[in-house]
Amino acid sequence: MTGMQMIDQTHAIDLLSWVDSANSAQTDFPIQNLPYGRFRLMNEQHWRIGVAIGDQVLDLRATGLIDFDEINTLLAFDKAARVALRAAISAGLSQGSDKHALWSTHIYSQAELELGLPCDTRDYTDFYIGIHHARATGAMFRPENPLLPNYKFVPIGYHGRASTLVASNTLIKRPSGQTKTPNQDIPNLGPCKRLDFELEMGVIIGQSNPLGQPVSIEQAEDKIFGLTLFNDWSARDIQAWEYQPLGPFLGKSFASTVSPWMVTMEALAPFRQAYFRPEGDPQPLPYLDSDFNRKAGALDVDLQVYIQTAKMKEAGLEPESLSRSNFAQAAYWTIAQLVAHHTVNGCSLSTGDLFGTGTLSGPVPEQAGSLLELSKSGKQAIQLANGETRSFLEDGDRITFKGSCQRPGYRRIGFGHCTGQVIG
Amino acid sequence: MTGMQMIDQTHAIDLLSWVDSANSAQTDFPIQNLPYGRFRLMNEQHWRIGVAIGDQVLDLRATGLIDFDEINTLLAFDKAARVALRAAISAGLSQGSDKHALWSTHIYSQAELELGLPCDTRDYTDFYIGIHHARATGAMFRPENPLLPNYKFVPIGYHGRASTLVASNTLIKRPSGQTKTPNQDIPNLGPCKRLDFELEMGVIIGQSNPLGQPVSIEQAEDKIFGLTLFNDWSARDIQAWEYQPLGPFLGKSFASTVSPWMVTMEALAPFRQAYFRPEGDPQPLPYLDSDFNRKAGALDVDLQVYIQTAKMKEAGLEPESLSRSNFAQAAYWTIAQLVAHHTVNGCSLSTGDLFGTGTLSGPVPEQAGSLLELSKSGKQAIQLANGETRSFLEDGDRITFKGSCQRPGYRRIGFGHCTGQVIG
Repeated sequence: MTGMQMIDQTHAIDLLSWVDSANSAQTDFPIQNLPYGRFRLMNEQHWRIGVAIGDQVLDLRATGLIDFDEINTLLAFDKAARVALRAAISAGLSQGSDKHALWSTHIYSQAELELGLPCDTRDYTDFYIGIHHARATGAMFRPENPLLPNYKFVPIGYHGRASTLVASNTLIKRPSGQTKTPNQDIPNLGPCKRLDFELEMGVIIGQSNPLGQPVSIEQAEDKIFGLTLFNDWSARDIQAWEYQPLGPFLGKSFASTVSPWMVTMEALAPFRQAYFRPEGDPQPLPYLDSDFNRKAGALDVDLQVYIQTAKMKEAGLEPESLSRSNFAQAAYWTIAQLVAHHTVNGCSLSTGDLFGTGTLSGPVPEQAGSLLELSKSGKQAIQLANGETRSFLEDGDRITFKGSCQRPGYRRIGFGHCTGQVIG
Repeated sequence: MTGMQMIDQTHAIDLLSWVDSANSAQTDFPIQNLPYGRFRLMNEQHWRIGVAIGDQVLDLRATGLIDFDEINTLLAFDKAARVALRAAISAGLSQGSDKHALWSTHIYSQAELELGLPCDTRDYTDFYIGIHHARATGAMFRPENPLLPNYKFVPIGYHGRASTLVASNTLIKRPSGQTKTPNQDIPNLGPCKRLDFELEMGVIIGQSNPLGQPVSIEQAEDKIFGLTLFNDWSARDIQAWEYQPLGPFLGKSFASTVSPWMVTMEALAPFRQAYFRPEGDPQPLPYLDSDFNRKAGALDVDLQVYIQTAKMKEAGLEPESLSRSNFAQAAYWTIAQLVAHHTVNGCSLSTGDLFGTGTLSGPVPEQAGSLLELSKSGKQAIQLANGETRSFLEDGDRITFKGSCQRPGYRRIGFGHCTGQVIG
């Protein structure tokens, strides 16, 4: 089944919902999207499974379409069950549906509820597939050889810290840690001075694979449930001192923000693209290569980063755009390749596992997905419209990611917000 | 409270149990030990909480001392509750106890049951505190500068893969992966040719800490529940090609073996030692330093590695000793320092989290905790008594770790076995 064949009536551009806000051209969540997440009403203890529709959230269990509360149960559905559930939700939310009266009693305004982490994540892995980011940051350390010899063969990744994944809107406390500048003889402990964001997407794993059984790139497509936005907050000074020889650790594990809505692979079907290597680059090894991956392995997602400083907020200024990028243009590997590579050694993935893509910087400097790149490692502060400058994040700064997919003939679908404010 | 003050009547050398095998001088599990783990009878679905005593296992819930089945609930006990539970188990298993008749109906032979992973682990972190290992392996890559400048300041660690932690006795399937020798132009996919073990201990976290709240080194002692043996199986050829710049990944995440019994910090109290730095080395930064840590931060655990090849097994030969080391002599950092460092950035640890110490090689080459070191990176195969040689592990090889603590005036306590056999 190719990406094109996966497009069905749930993607029809003229499909409208009885939820009026879902029919607005501005919404991230038209009836063609239907992302899943977790919500609870104020003062509730337990999370419910929700579907975003316009500025509302549908309580999925209350519709009777499912009979459980654990969202990971839904993530573990096989492809056919996922497609069937999507079709049923789409039908029920469509204008003229006989579910309108009943379901409208199970709909809540997003404004009156709390959104949580979208699922339970056992293991989180962070990849490094943004080649422009790898090249730009590599050049800071190795100007003569920015990309290491393995980069174009191995989808480089490392294990992340699952316990410090946090929901969008969680405050980000500036971490302390050991740092050492070249001028210091010995390191000292103190608050991070080079706090940064990383613009990433999150890949959510659906069905698990048993230990010892690799997932082929052909099977990989069906193992992926959907995508989120993801901010891999980074303490650059802590990371620089600690990361040799075993990789990033405390420079990352203070917090990583996941956006609330998992946009499903079904919803993303119309926005797939051909995947190819720049001329002269090596082709992927056979276990990372397939017809489908070449034809439609990439995803065309527009990504944006906004900043709102404390002063901007006080002055009533709207968040200001810092950068804009695109998943397909930034990524050297596809998400199916990540699954095939991660499991080639027999590693078991669990339902709800999260892959961060790595920073998705675009090919030109203004499209960088981190302040490290935008400020040239702090040497060239960026200028904000209100006169402030930033090399790295200051207390009170709020960083917000947005993402969306557009293609002529289809409704625009969005990812909502991935946001967090830094506190001291 | 110092390590010495934690010694109470449960450690008395003349304390005997009504379980005869616990009174044998050879047992790892005298009544002075009382480690916790999980077991189930053949064909049972669910794990029960057990206490090892001689060659038997006590079903803890059946005694009425606890009223739950989740071992992580026990791990989350505060110090006072842990001490009280240990005292009650010790009293009930003592010769002459009025519990003898009742409890003997809740005791099973270890031979008739299955031992599982000792607890539920959310996040697993692997450290690198074996300085002789760090120096020996560093010298293979950087002969002029084996230890990196951060080594004596930062307890180096990285996030590991929690989903591939496996119970002792689980078969270890040789992983496949990308490798590239210097002679190859491009890498290829194939079975690992340099499969290795790493002799480590596992540190099990008891009480959690909330996100954003570091654990001081003084508090750290009470956060540690106990220790296990730990084999961080490593695919050296996969690791060598993939690990730059973000650290080990698929070279580790195919399997890591945890021994079944968590030996508690209470049981280990008599075996604590002073912690000090070699003359001329920098002192730990203040957040990694305390009076108690200097007086009693180290643990005197004797560690042994055995190999039994397929041919040895066929010929009825016993496992052969490969190496012998000692935790206190091998480790540059204490386990309390690991907790203080891991949380200094605000990282939240969860009950049941596992820290691997890193390979605990002793100061001389024969005490190395990996084949990489013992065989000089495969250049000098080691000779086994039956005429076989080994540079790295071959299919059919079984690696077993043992560990024990001894001190005059105290019963020897042991850690049981951490074992796994390699299959193709």
